[in-house]
Amino acid sequence: MAATLTGSNTKLRDDLIRLLGAERVMDSTLERHLYAKDAGVYVGNPTVVVMIETTEEVAQVVRAARRHGVPVVARGAGTGLSAGAVPEVGGVVLVTTRMNRIEEIDTENRTAWVGPGVINLDLSAATTPFGMHFAPDPSSQSACTVGGNIACNSGGPHCLSEGSTVNHVLALEVVTDTGDVMIVGSGAPDPIGLDLRGILVGSEGTLGIVTRALVKLTPNPPDVRTMAVAFPTIEDAAATVSGIIAAGLIPAALEMMDQLMMQAIENWLHAGLPVEAGALLLAEVTGVTEAVAAEAEIITSIAHGNNALSVQVAASPEEREILWKSRKSAFGAVAQAAPDYYLHDTVVPRTRLVEAMRQVYEIGERYEIIMMNVFHAGDGNLHPLMAFDASEPGRLDKVKAAADELVELCVEKGGVLSGEHGIGIEKRHLMPLLFTEMDLDAQARVKEAFDAEGVFNPGKVLPEGSRCFDFGRPVPEGAWV
Amino acid sequence: MAATLTGSNTKLRDDLIRLLGAERVMDSTLERHLYAKDAGVYVGNPTVVVMIETTEEVAQVVRAARRHGVPVVARGAGTGLSAGAVPEVGGVVLVTTRMNRIEEIDTENRTAWVGPGVINLDLSAATTPFGMHFAPDPSSQSACTVGGNIACNSGGPHCLSEGSTVNHVLALEVVTDTGDVMIVGSGAPDPIGLDLRGILVGSEGTLGIVTRALVKLTPNPPDVRTMAVAFPTIEDAAATVSGIIAAGLIPAALEMMDQLMMQAIENWLHAGLPVEAGALLLAEVTGVTEAVAAEAEIITSIAHGNNALSVQVAASPEEREILWKSRKSAFGAVAQAAPDYYLHDTVVPRTRLVEAMRQVYEIGERYEIIMMNVFHAGDGNLHPLMAFDASEPGRLDKVKAAADELVELCVEKGGVLSGEHGIGIEKRHLMPLLFTEMDLDAQARVKEAFDAEGVFNPGKVLPEGSRCFDFGRPVPEGAWV
Repeated sequence: MAATLTGSNTKLRDDLIRLLGAERVMDSTLERHLYAKDAGVYVGNPTVVVMIETTEEVAQVVRAARRHGVPVVARGAGTGLSAGAVPEVGGVVLVTTRMNRIEEIDTENRTAWVGPGVINLDLSAATTPFGMHFAPDPSSQSACTVGGNIACNSGGPHCLSEGSTVNHVLALEVVTDTGDVMIVGSGAPDPIGLDLRGILVGSEGTLGIVTRALVKLTPNPPDVRTMAVAFPTIEDAAATVSGIIAAGLIPAALEMMDQLMMQAIENWLHAGLPVEAGALLLAEVTGVTEAVAAEAEIITSIAHGNNALSVQVAASPEEREILWKSRKSAFGAVAQAAPDYYLHDTVVPRTRLVEAMRQVYEIGERYEIIMMNVFHAGDGNLHPLMAFDASEPGRLDKVKAAADELVELCVEKGGVLSGEHGIGIEKRHLMPLLFTEMDLDAQARVKEAFDAEGVFNPGKVLPEGSRCFDFGRPVPEGAWV
Repeated sequence: MAATLTGSNTKLRDDLIRLLGAERVMDSTLERHLYAKDAGVYVGNPTVVVMIETTEEVAQVVRAARRHGVPVVARGAGTGLSAGAVPEVGGVVLVTTRMNRIEEIDTENRTAWVGPGVINLDLSAATTPFGMHFAPDPSSQSACTVGGNIACNSGGPHCLSEGSTVNHVLALEVVTDTGDVMIVGSGAPDPIGLDLRGILVGSEGTLGIVTRALVKLTPNPPDVRTMAVAFPTIEDAAATVSGIIAAGLIPAALEMMDQLMMQAIENWLHAGLPVEAGALLLAEVTGVTEAVAAEAEIITSIAHGNNALSVQVAASPEEREILWKSRKSAFGAVAQAAPDYYLHDTVVPRTRLVEAMRQVYEIGERYEIIMMNVFHAGDGNLHPLMAFDASEPGRLDKVKAAADELVELCVEKGGVLSGEHGIGIEKRHLMPLLFTEMDLDAQARVKEAFDAEGVFNPGKVLPEGSRCFDFGRPVPEGAWV
């Protein structure tokens, strides 16, 4: 599978232009460069980039690519962080952003059929008039697509109470490796039969290409309280998280950020964050008014019992929005502060948050990397953010080594290697830390059952050396930035 | 695959006795009869029944069965209702009830490693001292096994708020078709990679045999209010359910029963149910005390707005227990009233509950079958219960015809064919009502990826004529009772 447009690949391009018109087939150096990476640090090498508008076009592109022996890599908005949409060994990059139609909203049953290119927040905006929203809310939700959320089984702050994307997808229309169109899933709230829907969610485009999705919509809660609680230390904030969970509350969200992160955000947004504090806890409770009032009071009391410096309750929708904007702009804020950043995603048991954070800082010191932290404290999902300058010689290698060390420490503590960003290229070599060899082999056999010839997104998710994943894939050394 | 112990099957028995000892290998007519059916109406034909105690034994039995060309059908407590554990074409019935060890309870991370034969309620009893329970709570929970719950992706009243079994399983130890032992799943709260764990849950023993499971434990809520609300009509009760959901409440459970069902239960249990009412709604809210108090008040007010005859709030744990015992004894109560019963399991959109119920009664009248109803109203999961006498000529055929008609009407209304009982033999012929041909074909290819030779539970889940499911399976005609 060659990665440059020579020989038979010019014929592929000609075929694609016949199918889609020249405007939607891009292969200039600039265009191929633009689609060579996602929001992470790995760089691939697109053979050609196509902008897709219909299911039938996806089917035809898959058939054409297969005919020419070139793989197909689906891509949404490119906000992924684990290189799931990076065409490492070349391939047709199939961009779904134009498949952005919300086809049908069923207000009675609270479902919607949507194209994969629908932007996450657009779906919630479109369903707001009906008092509903799409629950998965990654920080990138104003840009990322529902198709990307499905590919990565994405999470977000509110997945503490609502679960990740797989809990919000009922059925999928999928283009198969043979270019056929298949509907999987029965629409049942609890899966029936062999749950293909469940295995497609999170498969990062390695089993087929999702061209429509039946998603579940979540009713907007009748009332909400969003609170920002400042603490002198991370230990105090973490103790408060444990106390809240122990009290039997399951808040809608429970987010934490450290002082460095707060300062970076405040410098950019001027949201009035308590930058003198050691840690900030963002807690949100939802439900009927009496319940949220009672729960907010319990949280306040637990926070005061753990040395809270201040408890701010958002008094208006606008105040709430500013708090959430602070949280979700964290990575934008860092981009203002350093030329490059690397955002990690690992999970530790919630009970081991404090010691894990201590080690995160220790690793930062050892590698001389600034570690900022903002994370889903409620479920132990850490997001250490390393700000750096990639032009500094050797800096990138240090960042990479620190990143792997971070994952290993989390897995050692009984955690897992990813919370919600997917595996992609970034973490495939770490899969054996978590999965048995036989599990990985069975996963590869399922991959084969869907895609025997390896048309879809080769080399992603499963580690090198897995069955059906070892056809001439180059080692990713030197592929960084 | 012969179904009687002749020829090479005597050699299989000899092999099994060598492995397990004679006491744990059963093949007398009586023993084979006892393990020929589950709690439903289909009857199979076991070749031989083995009582298994260890993972290694399961592996050896699978290897032996395969050597002799005889399939393996795993069985827990036999409380299933869709014939998932019925050895239709013969086979080694592998009984897991002795694998009932709770191996490890991790109170910090709220997980447990358990054997598949652990009884559902025993697991919750064992974790009560730590303030936790296993959330899936089928009505048969005092008898059914965790392995059976996993096989069928079982639900229960509290799955309205907690989700079905798949949401409570983090990893599985599985014996494969080659007799190897595999661990699938990473233990991650949100699945990572290709989610084999998710596809094994609900696969009814067709992909492998679960020999240990890492399950999630759910903290017991700090407070609970259980309410029994009587209504003149089912319409009023259903309107109350809609009102509660519309108010933004997600109660822990929301169960309904009709008058006939109440009368049957009351005749048996003398629990003081309001038998003069047309319908009874059982609602439970959980959370912190202030929240449950507020929510109970909202439910009461909605109920009164919909003509409630009485609202009874359980004043003590004992009163709560009696209410739940009434609900969960429904099927035992019917067994007292009629020699046979057939319990169905279908789902309609909650908004179409009332019209579906009307049609359920209409079908009952037309086929002259008494229809009693007790069901999970919160998620539209109907359980029409047909009481009858199978010795009456032609009665069984009518029941079967009525059952299929019930499923078809639910699917027509946008519902699905099963909520929580699995597919087994009972509903495999109805799968094409809900799944596309390509979906079923892809499910069959996944089955092949796990079990190419069809060692495990042949003929279950997928409809006849599916790939890999059509090797000489007899048509199930005449297999009833």
